[in-house]
Amino acid sequence: MSTETSASQQIFVTVALNAWEQWVSRAGKVFESLSDEQMFTEIVPGKNRPIYLLGHLLVVNDALIAQLRLGEPDHSNLRDTFITQPDRAVAELPPIAELREAWKTTHARLTSLFQQLTPEQWLERHSTISEEDFVKEPHRNRLALLASRTSHAAYHLGQLQLLKK
Amino acid sequence: MSTETSASQQIFVTVALNAWEQWVSRAGKVFESLSDEQMFTEIVPGKNRPIYLLGHLLVVNDALIAQLRLGEPDHSNLRDTFITQPDRAVAELPPIAELREAWKTTHARLTSLFQQLTPEQWLERHSTISEEDFVKEPHRNRLALLASRTSHAAYHLGQLQLLKK
Repeated sequence: MSTETSASQQIFVTVALNAWEQWVSRAGKVFESLSDEQMFTEIVPGKNRPIYLLGHLLVVNDALIAQLRLGEPDHSNLRDTFITQPDRAVAELPPIAELREAWKTTHARLTSLFQQLTPEQWLERHSTISEEDFVKEPHRNRLALLASRTSHAAYHLGQLQLLKK
Repeated sequence: MSTETSASQQIFVTVALNAWEQWVSRAGKVFESLSDEQMFTEIVPGKNRPIYLLGHLLVVNDALIAQLRLGEPDHSNLRDTFITQPDRAVAELPPIAELREAWKTTHARLTSLFQQLTPEQWLERHSTISEEDFVKEPHRNRLALLASRTSHAAYHLGQLQLLKK
């Protein structure tokens, strides 16, 4: 592969990684800025509270570690509380401070793992598609999963912003 | 450039285009599904109404045509109403049916324009960065702008979903 081509492939990856960092960092800042009372206030009556969205985004993003075949996630024990079950189904939530700290640690780990992948590795399959299907659908690769999780973070960030005065 | 490399570059573009189509199509379906009454109901008191978000996403996405240097946008005349001014600042909005029709036409045009770009062209600069700056920041390309608009659509879709019972 020529140096020029390799450089252009790296740019495609940089675009996706920059988008990821930007949206995740925006969401992280909102979670930092909300008071404890706001963290437990439903954005719309009957809908999710920010504390749930914090845990939800944390656990969904953490799950990328296994889905991208990069290792064991940190927070599989919270899947039931923040993915399988809806908000308010589980009475006992982890303390806000613990979730905020986990947010930082896990996203720092993700950033570090992402930086180790080459452009070619980003085009490899993720773990939720079989090798057989991947031959037919090569766009269902690691980068596609990252892009999907980036917009998923934006989706919930839009909801959180409705709490702003 | 080898055929193999060119194919892998096309996959990077396909990932971004699939994500765009997916989120825009999800937003379009929500706008189709809301009643006229819901279209004029604030999602949260004092915040945007779906009619405004429909116009806002339409005009922001339409503006991509000029920002990606692909031609003249269809709806520059609506920029003031749906971008410069916040919701409820402009009393007279276009009819819902007209906005829904414009959504379909403009997004079909965008899809068609996007399909004409090669991977190399997606890595060219967009119109809001100077040629001088682009030399230093080659990741600020057309594809980055598309990815940003994709997550922007997801951001507002998240808000719209709060109207669901």
